[in-house]
Amino acid sequence: MEAKEILKAHVAKIATLTDEQFDYFFSHFKQQRFQKGQALITEGDKVDCEYFVLSGCLKSFFINDDLKMFILQFAMPTWWASDYNALYNNTKATINVDCITDTEVLSLSNDDREKLCNELHNAEHFFRWRTNKGYVAAQKRLLSFMNNNVKYRYEELLKLYPELYNIVPKNLIAAYLGVSRETLSRLYNT
Amino acid sequence: MEAKEILKAHVAKIATLTDEQFDYFFSHFKQQRFQKGQALITEGDKVDCEYFVLSGCLKSFFINDDLKMFILQFAMPTWWASDYNALYNNTKATINVDCITDTEVLSLSNDDREKLCNELHNAEHFFRWRTNKGYVAAQKRLLSFMNNNVKYRYEELLKLYPELYNIVPKNLIAAYLGVSRETLSRLYNT
Repeated sequence: MEAKEILKAHVAKIATLTDEQFDYFFSHFKQQRFQKGQALITEGDKVDCEYFVLSGCLKSFFINDDLKMFILQFAMPTWWASDYNALYNNTKATINVDCITDTEVLSLSNDDREKLCNELHNAEHFFRWRTNKGYVAAQKRLLSFMNNNVKYRYEELLKLYPELYNIVPKNLIAAYLGVSRETLSRLYNT
Repeated sequence: MEAKEILKAHVAKIATLTDEQFDYFFSHFKQQRFQKGQALITEGDKVDCEYFVLSGCLKSFFINDDLKMFILQFAMPTWWASDYNALYNNTKATINVDCITDTEVLSLSNDDREKLCNELHNAEHFFRWRTNKGYVAAQKRLLSFMNNNVKYRYEELLKLYPELYNIVPKNLIAAYLGVSRETLSRLYNT
């Protein structure tokens, strides 16, 4: 499927745009390819864009004071990723976003998103519900992190991202769950 | 300040509504008073409303499998609270919301929020940015939880909620930080 069709199908799940409106909406996105390991956002960067994943997989992560990596989110196709704190508040990135595999995205600048939301009520509706879903996912992520039942959280993760198991190295799954690679191995013989 | 004025000032920080539009917007809210300790949402409940705090303080919390309480959020005046996962997805509550002190709120039903967003582009703009800010707060909360530097997190908490220290018992602050009451005492002689 072409980039435009992928985005169109994604938007149509939430908001109704006419073909003309969608063409205009789409004209503000820029298609980009990144290679495995390449960084889209690095801590300390100025953040101008958010990314809609077309193919591949991103991770957003954070290195804590003990140099331990925590993964906030994996972004698979039709997921969005950015450092939204930095993007919305015009501050420097405090998290990193990079590619687990070669990845294709559509990027949208902060200014263009606000312009689209201002010009098209339906675009504003789309982005409101996009963020509502993101908010709920972030809340669930926090609850999952607080609930110290690793088995439950591991199964929840695979339910949320069924394809993950084949794509993502086990050490990154451990970093998402907040446990050591050894703990994960012990529990699942992975 | 009256309830209407408090909400009006809050909305005006994000969106521009005419007086007539705001009167209409406000007519969908219902003012309610709750007593210290009273529950607004209990795990397993059907969730219909979200709450805008006028005075007092709410906490949203979760009891994990080891019966340990974790506080997701404190909601002070002009903050919003609900179980948004349950509210948006029409599922049963997985978290609890109750009153740390006597609390006055304005409640808004899910249906009325959607109706307002549909009828008024500016209301949709307001709620989009309200949720954007909530999303960023949830992300920061997760980062703060992952970063195991308790001292940093404690100071961050008091920066975020300066009035908290006087309102909230220390055991609840510990439950927010994810540490024991004893650890908090040892660090701060509180």
